[in-house]
Amino acid sequence: MTRIAFIGLGTMGLPMAHNVLRAGYDLTVYDIMPDPVERLAADGARAAGSPREAAEGCDVVITMLPTSREVEAAVLEEDGVYAGLAPGSVHIEMSTIEPSATRRFAASAEQRGIRVMDAPVGKSSAAAAAGDLTIMVGGPAELLEEHRALLSTMGSTIHHCGEVGAGEVVKLVNNLVTGGICVVVAEAIVLGTKAGADPNILVDVMGGTLAGNAQLESLFRASVFKGAFEPGFKTRLMLKDARLGVGMADELNVPVPVCALVKELYGTAVQRGLGDRDFGSYTTLVEEVAGVQARVGEARSQTATVG
Amino acid sequence: MTRIAFIGLGTMGLPMAHNVLRAGYDLTVYDIMPDPVERLAADGARAAGSPREAAEGCDVVITMLPTSREVEAAVLEEDGVYAGLAPGSVHIEMSTIEPSATRRFAASAEQRGIRVMDAPVGKSSAAAAAGDLTIMVGGPAELLEEHRALLSTMGSTIHHCGEVGAGEVVKLVNNLVTGGICVVVAEAIVLGTKAGADPNILVDVMGGTLAGNAQLESLFRASVFKGAFEPGFKTRLMLKDARLGVGMADELNVPVPVCALVKELYGTAVQRGLGDRDFGSYTTLVEEVAGVQARVGEARSQTATVG
Amino acid sequence: MTRIAFIGLGTMGLPMAHNVLRAGYDLTVYDIMPDPVERLAADGARAAGSPREAAEGCDVVITMLPTSREVEAAVLEEDGVYAGLAPGSVHIEMSTIEPSATRRFAASAEQRGIRVMDAPVGKSSAAAAAGDLTIMVGGPAELLEEHRALLSTMGSTIHHCGEVGAGEVVKLVNNLVTGGICVVVAEAIVLGTKAGADPNILVDVMGGTLAGNAQLESLFRASVFKGAFEPGFKTRLMLKDARLGVGMADELNVPVPVCALVKELYGTAVQRGLGDRDFGSYTTLVEEVAGVQARVGEARSQTATVG
Amino acid sequence: MTRIAFIGLGTMGLPMAHNVLRAGYDLTVYDIMPDPVERLAADGARAAGSPREAAEGCDVVITMLPTSREVEAAVLEEDGVYAGLAPGSVHIEMSTIEPSATRRFAASAEQRGIRVMDAPVGKSSAAAAAGDLTIMVGGPAELLEEHRALLSTMGSTIHHCGEVGAGEVVKLVNNLVTGGICVVVAEAIVLGTKAGADPNILVDVMGGTLAGNAQLESLFRASVFKGAFEPGFKTRLMLKDARLGVGMADELNVPVPVCALVKELYGTAVQRGLGDRDFGSYTTLVEEVAGVQARVGEARSQTATVG
Repeated sequence: MTRIAFIGLGTMGLPMAHNVLRAGYDLTVYDIMPDPVERLAADGARAAGSPREAAEGCDVVITMLPTSREVEAAVLEEDGVYAGLAPGSVHIEMSTIEPSATRRFAASAEQRGIRVMDAPVGKSSAAAAAGDLTIMVGGPAELLEEHRALLSTMGSTIHHCGEVGAGEVVKLVNNLVTGGICVVVAEAIVLGTKAGADPNILVDVMGGTLAGNAQLESLFRASVFKGAFEPGFKTRLMLKDARLGVGMADELNVPVPVCALVKELYGTAVQRGLGDRDFGSYTTLVEEVAGVQARVGEARSQTATVG
Repeated sequence: MTRIAFIGLGTMGLPMAHNVLRAGYDLTVYDIMPDPVERLAADGARAAGSPREAAEGCDVVITMLPTSREVEAAVLEEDGVYAGLAPGSVHIEMSTIEPSATRRFAASAEQRGIRVMDAPVGKSSAAAAAGDLTIMVGGPAELLEEHRALLSTMGSTIHHCGEVGAGEVVKLVNNLVTGGICVVVAEAIVLGTKAGADPNILVDVMGGTLAGNAQLESLFRASVFKGAFEPGFKTRLMLKDARLGVGMADELNVPVPVCALVKELYGTAVQRGLGDRDFGSYTTLVEEVAGVQARVGEARSQTATVG
Repeated sequence: MTRIAFIGLGTMGLPMAHNVLRAGYDLTVYDIMPDPVERLAADGARAAGSPREAAEGCDVVITMLPTSREVEAAVLEEDGVYAGLAPGSVHIEMSTIEPSATRRFAASAEQRGIRVMDAPVGKSSAAAAAGDLTIMVGGPAELLEEHRALLSTMGSTIHHCGEVGAGEVVKLVNNLVTGGICVVVAEAIVLGTKAGADPNILVDVMGGTLAGNAQLESLFRASVFKGAFEPGFKTRLMLKDARLGVGMADELNVPVPVCALVKELYGTAVQRGLGDRDFGSYTTLVEEVAGVQARVGEARSQTATVG
Repeated sequence: MTRIAFIGLGTMGLPMAHNVLRAGYDLTVYDIMPDPVERLAADGARAAGSPREAAEGCDVVITMLPTSREVEAAVLEEDGVYAGLAPGSVHIEMSTIEPSATRRFAASAEQRGIRVMDAPVGKSSAAAAAGDLTIMVGGPAELLEEHRALLSTMGSTIHHCGEVGAGEVVKLVNNLVTGGICVVVAEAIVLGTKAGADPNILVDVMGGTLAGNAQLESLFRASVFKGAFEPGFKTRLMLKDARLGVGMADELNVPVPVCALVKELYGTAVQRGLGDRDFGSYTTLVEEVAGVQARVGEARSQTATVG
C-alpha cells in the first residue's frame, strides 16, 4: 500500500489530509501546530516530529503550506523532507507559491533522485472538505497518471498543465483573471445602478454578450446583490495570489498595468477589513464611495439618474 | 402603413436602414453624405434635404449618428427633426451617446408631444447587415411593444432596460465590462505564455472556474491565438464607448479606477495603429512589450520560463 | 476711463471684481445670485439684469464662471455678452474651462469683431482677495499689454502662454502635475512612515534630490504633517481640473494613464467627504488604509517596521 | 590604520572602492568577476578569494551588490563575510535591497557581535567616480560618526535616517517619488505640447507653483527637451527600485496604486529598449504614442491644437 506523508494541515491541508486518510492510504502527518495533528492522529494517522521524520519510508510526500518560505524550510532544511525521502519517491507540491520557487525546489529534489510535480488547487475549503477541488498539475504526464487516484481523493477536476511549475503558472493566471473581472464588473455594475439601471437587467443583458462571465450569476446575482459575503474565496487569499501573479510578471518582465492596479485595490479591501470575507465583497467598497448599492429584492439606499 | 425616417447612414445606419426598407416600410432617409442616400434611393427610399424635411409627415424618426453633437444638431436645430415631427409621433434614438444627453433631448421632445425611446445597439456591422443586432431599449414598455416589429427588422435580441436613457446606460456598462475583461485576459494569458504555459490549456482551465468568460473561446481561441483581427468590434469604437462610460462615471461621481486605466490603454492601442482592427488586437501590444506571442497552431516567437 | 463688466461673482469672482472696483475702474456686474451683486453695488458697482445688459457700452467684459456650459450661456445666448459688445471691445475669459471651448467661443467672438484672451488663474480665494493670483494668458501679446494694468489689479504674476486657449492649456497641465505629485508623495511618505522612517527626514532628504518638489515644504511639512487641511486649493477643484485635463487628453488622443488614475483617486476623496478640504487631505485616505499617520510633533497612531 | 574590505565591484562599486583606496585605506577587494579585482589590485588593493577571506582581519566590510540574493550569499554562506569578521567589527551594507532583508542580515550579524549599518547611495556612477554620492544611513548615530570619514571618501552628502534599515527605506521612498514625478510630468508636458503650448513656457510657469519640482530644469529642460538621454540614472535601475518600493508596500500592506502603475510603465520602457538610457527617456514613449515631441531649439515633429 502507498505510504503518504502530508505536511501542512491548515484551512485547506487538514480536510485534504482527511480525505486521503479516509480513502485508506497509510498516512503520516506533520504541522507546527499540534491541534490538527492530533485530530488526524485520532482518526488513524501517524504523527511525525519533523518533515524529515514524516518523509522517511514514504512513497509520496504532499506539502500544503502558506508561502515558499515555509516550503523551503520544510523541504530543504536539515530536518526537511528531501533529507528523509528515498530516491524514486515523489514530492507533490500543492501549496500556491511562485512557479520559480517550485522549479528551484524541483531542481534540488531531482539531484537526489526525487520526482516532483506541482499540483496547486482551486476553489474553497468547503470544496476541500468535499473532495471537490480543482487541481492544476505540472510535471511528467506519467507521474500524474501514477498518482491520479491519490489526487482524486482530494479533487474532482484534474488538469495536466505542462511541465513542473506549470500548475502554479496556470493557477496564478486563472486567479489574476478572476480577480480582475470581479473589480471590473463591480465598478461597472455599481455605476450602472447609480445611473438608474436595474442590476438584474445588467446581468441579463451582459450574459448574452462578450461581457458575459461566470461571476455574473454565481457571484454577483447569487451573493453580491444580496449583500452575502461568506467566503467562498477570501479577499486576503485573492490578494496573496494577485501578489504572486504580479511578482511572476516582474520576474518575467511582462508589464501588467491593470493586474498591478487590481492588486492594490484588493490590498485596500483587506486593509479596510474585508480580508476574511468573500472577494466579491470588494464591490462594497465601490458602493460605499459611489453612495449607492447594487441590491435586488430590497430597497436600494440611493439612486441617482444621469443629467 | 407606418412612415419611417432614418437619419444617419454610416457603417451601422446604412445596413439598418436597408433592413427597414426591405421589410416594406415607407422610408425617407437623410445623411450629410450623398452616397448612402443615393444607394437607398435606388432601392426605393425617399431622399430628404434636411432632418426636418425627412421627419415631416413621419410616424417614427430613427437617428443613428456618431456623437451627441451630431444628434443635437439633427434634432434640436431649426432644420431639425423636432421641428418637423407632429405631436404623437416617435423618435427612436439608436446612436450610442451619453445617457444624460439622451435624457436632455427626450425632455425637449416631450415638451412638443413627441414620444422618445433610446435603443442603442450591440454587435458589429455584419450583424447590422444580417438584422441580427442586440438592441437595448429605454422608454415606456408600451412604446417598445408598439414598435417591436420595426426594431425586429434590425435586431434579433431586444432588451427592455428601463426608462428613457436606460438603454444607453446598459450599453455603456456592458462595453466597460467587455473592454475591461479583454485587457485583463490579454495581460494574464500573455504572462502565462511567457511563463511556459500553453494558451489552449489556460483557456481550458479558466473555462471551468470563476475566471470563465465569453471571450475565452469566441475572441481569444477563435481569433487572438491565430493573430486574426478583422473586426468584429473595432478598437476605436471600444475607445469611444470607454470614454462615454468613464464620462458617465465622472458625471455621477462614481470613481472607476480600473475602467479609467483601461480607457487609456485602448487610447494607446488606437494611437499605435490598431483603431480599425478588432479590439482583441489590444493583446498584440501586450505581446510586443512582453516579447512573446500567445499563439497556437504555429511556433511561438519566444518562450521564456520562470526562474 | 475703461468700462469693465464682470460676469460671475462666486468664490473667486467676487473678490476679483472687488479688486477691479477698488482700482477705480467703472464696473458693471452680473450674477444669477442677487447677494454678491448687491455687495458690489453697495461699493459702487452698477448691477445689470443680464450678461448682455452688462456688456453694453463696455470696453472689456470679464467672465469667471464654473464650467463651459455657463460660459456658453453667458456669451452666446440671445441675452448674452456677445450680443451686447461692440466691435473692437474685448472679452477676457478667466474661467477654467476646456481649451477647445475657449477657442470655440473666441472664433464666435472674432466673427463679430470682438477680441478675446483667456486668462485663467492659479492659487486660492485668499490670493484672489489679496490681488495675488497667478494669471495664465492666451491671446495676442499686444492685447495682454493693453490690459496688463487691469489684470494686475487681480494678480501679481502674469504669464503670457501663447495664442488664445494657451492660458487654459498651461493651467490644466500645471494642475495635472500638481495633483499627480501630491498623490505620489502621499503614497510614498505614508509608506515610508509605516516602514519606520521619520516624515521630517523623508522631506529633508528628498529636498536635495530629483524627488524634490514644491509641495514637500509648503504642503506636506507645513500642513499635512500637522493634520491641517484648511484650503488652500479645494479637493473638489482639483478634481474638476483633473477632469478637464484628462478630457483634453481624450480630445487630443494623448493617453495619460497615471493622470487618469489620479483623477479617479481625487474622485474617491471627494466622495469620502474631502471635497471642501485642501487637496493635500488626500493623504488622509492613504493613511486611513495604511493604518498609520505621517505626523510630526505628536505621537503617531501606529508604526510598524518592515520584516 | 582601518582595514577595509569591499565586496561587489560593479558599475557603482568599482569607483567607490577606488575612492576608498585613494584616501589611503588598507583595502581588500572581492568580486566574482576577475577584471575589476585586477584593476584595483594594480592600484594597490589586496585581492581575496572569497567574501570570508576578504573579511578576515578587517575592521569594516562594505557590500555593494545587485540584489538581496547576492548579499545573502556574500554574508551568510559558509564562505561569507560573517564567518570571517571578528566580533566588534562592522558591516556597512551599501547595496539597494529590501529594508526587511537588511534587517534580517543585521539580526544575524548582531548575534555574532558584528555591528551593522545600511548606507545605500543616490545619484549616478559619475557621482560615484567623483566621490559625490548622496548616502542614506540607517543605524546607530555613533556608528555613523565613527565611520563618517570613510563614507565621506565616497559621498558628499550623508543623511542619518534612523535605525538599521532606515537608509534603505528613505532611498526607496525617494526613488518612488522621483519615478512618479517623472511619469506625471512626461504625460502632462507632452499633452500640453500637443495642445499647442511651448514646453519652455510650461516649465517656466510650473516652476513658480505647487507643480514645481527639481526635474523641470535639471531633467526636462536640460535633457528631455533636447532628446538627450545619456544616463544619469538608468531606466532599468529606476525599475529595480520601483519594484523594491512596491514590494516594501506589499510587505507592509500599504496600497500604493499610483506607484504600482508607475512601476509597470517603467517595465514597459525597459522592454521597449530604454533600460540603459536615462529614466527621463520614458518621455519618449509618451511622445511616440501621442504623435508629438516636446522639443525646443528645433522644429517639433507635429503639433495639433485642441478643438
